[in-house]
Amino acid sequence: MEKEISRAVIRRLPRYYRYLRDLLEEGVERISSNELSARMRVTASQIRQDLNNFGGFGQQGYGYNVKYLYDEIGKIMGINRQHNLVIVGAGNLGQALANYASFENMGFVLVGLFDVNPALKGVSIRGVEVRMLDEMKEFLKEERIDIAVLTMPKGNAGKVANMLVELGIHAIWNFAHLDLELPEDVVVENVHLSDSLMQLSYNIANRENQK
Amino acid sequence: MEKEISRAVIRRLPRYYRYLRDLLEEGVERISSNELSARMRVTASQIRQDLNNFGGFGQQGYGYNVKYLYDEIGKIMGINRQHNLVIVGAGNLGQALANYASFENMGFVLVGLFDVNPALKGVSIRGVEVRMLDEMKEFLKEERIDIAVLTMPKGNAGKVANMLVELGIHAIWNFAHLDLELPEDVVVENVHLSDSLMQLSYNIANRENQK
Repeated sequence: MEKEISRAVIRRLPRYYRYLRDLLEEGVERISSNELSARMRVTASQIRQDLNNFGGFGQQGYGYNVKYLYDEIGKIMGINRQHNLVIVGAGNLGQALANYASFENMGFVLVGLFDVNPALKGVSIRGVEVRMLDEMKEFLKEERIDIAVLTMPKGNAGKVANMLVELGIHAIWNFAHLDLELPEDVVVENVHLSDSLMQLSYNIANRENQK
Repeated sequence: MEKEISRAVIRRLPRYYRYLRDLLEEGVERISSNELSARMRVTASQIRQDLNNFGGFGQQGYGYNVKYLYDEIGKIMGINRQHNLVIVGAGNLGQALANYASFENMGFVLVGLFDVNPALKGVSIRGVEVRMLDEMKEFLKEERIDIAVLTMPKGNAGKVANMLVELGIHAIWNFAHLDLELPEDVVVENVHLSDSLMQLSYNIANRENQK
């Protein structure tokens, strides 16, 4: 793509994608920016502006073709190709993520699950067996893995992240409660749940202050 | 608090809090903005600016008192008081959240767990028993609940969220893959995991484009 798209727009695209998927599931084939605006509770002009970034998929008097727009946003977000995932940390959170079939529908395919807990050895989730962490090196030599999902306690997470990078992983979805220090070409997306919970508690306190 | 603090600063505070907790655990009593800057990989001037919002906890030549700063940020974020939680949806994700002892250390106390799956009835997580969803109304009449955590599939999540609000809940931590439509005085914090995963995949695609 020639044109630089602002980070703010990129941040909003997954939400468009979610609404468009819902529309597809409802069998809606086209939608006007006004209708989409009412559903998404953003202004129609914001929608037009956002989507104009990609050459304007809308047509005057017709609206947006839902499937086309869905596919185009998918391409922009890089989910028109398959991503192979391993999950490192097969506790409840790792298992919950392994169980999300919707990720697989978006092309994120779980191919490996690792843990250090021998009690989990051989447990199988959606057909993927939990392996012990010391088997990971061998595994990663043989499989092409695009994303490692880090769902282990923060204690060893930094060390394991370094190991993953040494083994050729260049993208990490990090749920461990620490900021990873990794080479610049490694892409990291953090989900810090306790930060989110604190944000909620701030908003509760602040709402009460405003009364 | 008299002074309006910008949203950007508020968004950064949980990260300060996390680093300060680590420092406390390491037994560090005070730290200069330069040292904190090196650890957190933000500029010392940003740190001074951010923390000046709260009357400047630092002292020239002494640095910041870690415990004091930790407690003050905790107060600002509203986690100096106890929040009682219920989790609605006791699948893997709900169970993962129920198992995070670190939330309880920050004053978020799990008091109820609900699901519609009879197989989960009576299962107990950290001493809290899973109840059936149809018992929730009775339960909420008797307990003071500050936050409901919504960890159920999106199908019924909207309906359950409305029910929670009718039953007096005013804050929802929403993991369901939809945007809730609730009265304005209800505080909602969303964790949309598929949005986060799409963001990661965008960054992967974009990194590769830049090569």
